[in-house]
Parts: sequence; C-alpha cells; structure tokens
Amino acid sequence: MPTFEFTSPVTKLIEELKKIPGIGRKSAQRISFYLLKTDWDNAVNLANAIVEAREKTFFCSTCSNITTMDPCEICSGKNRDMEKICVVEEPFNIYSIERTELYTGLYHVLHGNLSPIRGIGPDQLKIPGLLNRLENDEIKEVILATSPTTEGNATAHYLSEIIKKKRSNVRITRLALGIPIGADIDYVDSVTIAKAMEGRIDL
Amino acid sequence: MPTFEFTSPVTKLIEELKKIPGIGRKSAQRISFYLLKTDWDNAVNLANAIVEAREKTFFCSTCSNITTMDPCEICSGKNRDMEKICVVEEPFNIYSIERTELYTGLYHVLHGNLSPIRGIGPDQLKIPGLLNRLENDEIKEVILATSPTTEGNATAHYLSEIIKKKRSNVRITRLALGIPIGADIDYVDSVTIAKAMEGRIDL
Repeated sequence: MPTFEFTSPVTKLIEELKKIPGIGRKSAQRISFYLLKTDWDNAVNLANAIVEAREKTFFCSTCSNITTMDPCEICSGKNRDMEKICVVEEPFNIYSIERTELYTGLYHVLHGNLSPIRGIGPDQLKIPGLLNRLENDEIKEVILATSPTTEGNATAHYLSEIIKKKRSNVRITRLALGIPIGADIDYVDSVTIAKAMEGRIDL
Repeated sequence: MPTFEFTSPVTKLIEELKKIPGIGRKSAQRISFYLLKTDWDNAVNLANAIVEAREKTFFCSTCSNITTMDPCEICSGKNRDMEKICVVEEPFNIYSIERTELYTGLYHVLHGNLSPIRGIGPDQLKIPGLLNRLENDEIKEVILATSPTTEGNATAHYLSEIIKKKRSNVRITRLALGIPIGADIDYVDSVTIAKAMEGRIDL
C-alpha cells in the first residue's frame, strides 16, 4: 500500500465523493481537485445547494415524487388529467416522461423495483400508497412505466396482479417495446426486434 | 423546450453539479437524486468536506502542491532527496508518482501545460517559482514529467530550454516512453512502438 496521502481535508473530500455510486477513486480525485481550484463561489455554492436540497425537499405524501410542497406540483396541478397514474421507478423518470409533452396525467414513484436478490420486496417500495390512491374511483388507467428489465418487468407484473384484484374496472397498461427512433435495425438486439414484431401495428 | 422542471432546490443542485467538468445533465441528475435519497449524514458530510477542503488548503509557496502547511509535507520532508525536482502538471500527478515508491525527490506543480490555443502562456503556469528554486545549487536534476501529449511535450521542451540557459550544470530528464506493462503489442499504437524502439535498452 502506498504511504503517500493527500493532505487530510483533501483525502476526506475524496472519500466523501467516492460514496456516490458511479464515482470511483480517479473521478473523486478529479472532482475534488476541480473543487479546490475553481472559484471559491463555485465550491461553496455546491456545498450550499446540497444542504439546501436536503433541508427543503421531501417526498410528496401522495405520489412520493421529490417536492418542496405537499401535495407536489403535479398532484395539485389544475391542468393535469386526474384519471391516469403513471407508475415510475425513480423521480427522475418523471422528467424523462414530462419532456415528451404528451402525458398530462399523474405519477406514482415506487423508489425502486422488486428485487428478491437485493432484499427489496413490496414493503420496501411505495406500493401501499399506490393501492390507496386506487380507492379513488376517478382513476381510470394505471400506466406501468418501469424499465423493461428483469426487475422492472417483475415489478410491473406484480403490480398488474394486485391492481386487478383490487379494481377490475381500471385499465392497466405498459409502455410499448420496439425499435428506438433512429436506430439501425442491424444493430438492435434480437429480443427487441422480436418484441417490435409482436407489437407491430397496422398502417 | 420542456416546461417541466424539478423543484427549485433540486434544479439548483443539478445546475451546480453540471459545472464540474465531465459531469453532464444525466450524471448531475443521478448524483443529485443520490444526495437526496442517501442518509442525511452522507449528504451533509460531503457539503462540509467541500467547504473544509476550501478553507484549510492552499498551494505550497515552494512547489505549488495542495497543502495545509507551508512549506508542504514533501518540501519540508526530512527523508526526501533534496537534489531532484520532478515537474508535474497537476497535484494529483504527485499521487501517481508517489505510489511507485521509487522516487524520493521533490516536486513542482505547474498547474497546467502551455497552450497557446487556450491562452495559457508561461506566465499562467508556476514557472517563475520553478526557476527561483533552481537558484539553489543543491538541485542536481529536474525531471520533466508532463504528459507525452502535444501540450505536455511543448511544455517540457520550453522548460528544458529555459532551464539550460539558467543552469548549465543541472541534469534535465523526461520520463521514458514505451510499451506499458501488460499491454499486447498488437494493440499498442505505432507512435508508441516507434518510441519504444528508439529508446530500446541493452540486456
């Protein structure tokens, strides 16, 4: 093991940065030296933004999105379609869907997917809150927008079963699978092509 | 443009994170949501570490390394070889060289390379400090350990010229170029192979 260490406040900063998923030793080192060399304001503004974000935000008691008001802006939005709930894994998925400017309904954030391997069962996700919201007969459709991965599919399947048991009169949908726009079919994996073939539409 | 925005403290955190070189919108989003969801302590410790690193560290007045004491630990180290100075681009390069546990001399951090395109001339780098240190006749060797890139090579060439003018009795060296350990020669670029051939050693 090397005996050389950066001076202790730098070592500590690198250690804290390394706790962020996807940030390894090299990245932590580069970020920390950027923070040491950039304008004082840039560094301190980042530190303040972290603390402020933690102090001022919490999860919406209705949909579990990150918010500064309860219910959140979307749940309390007057121009939203109150008949649809789109179920997503994480808060930032809402951003990706909102960018389409196509969906105007409500959301529900699960904060993860079912994963028996990682010990995440229905109780670790915001599923009870979703079921409570379905007590409201105004909800006509639940769009299960978890990722088309093993865990995302399992979560969607599980939710579909329990929602059907609870409410037989609600439409349950899942995002279409197919070739992404602009892709060269030669480079698309065969499972995706098979799904696109199964879900082909009439012209 | 999408009208949807994350709640303002989150947007602000994402904006501050995006200022870090190499962190784009997606990474900033992922890091910010990690900071929102992790233990309170992890987030606040990072914020404190940033501020503490900025408050407690500065550049060594001798070698320009990041330090909490002046002169820095290496410049004031009793077990260092005071006859050699290894010139590096950035403070973290010192870490890479120290890890070899082979070099025991001193360092000098330039804080960049010469780059006419980006408007970085000799005055923007810590070159005057290096020349001052060469007033001391104890220095017998200067190792120019800038990267073997266009800018790093130009910087080494420039330094070599001005050091020779100032002190004819100092040895000026550059790190050897060659095949990296463990590499498959088939995958090494031809410029590197040519340099390795030029610098071949007798067995």
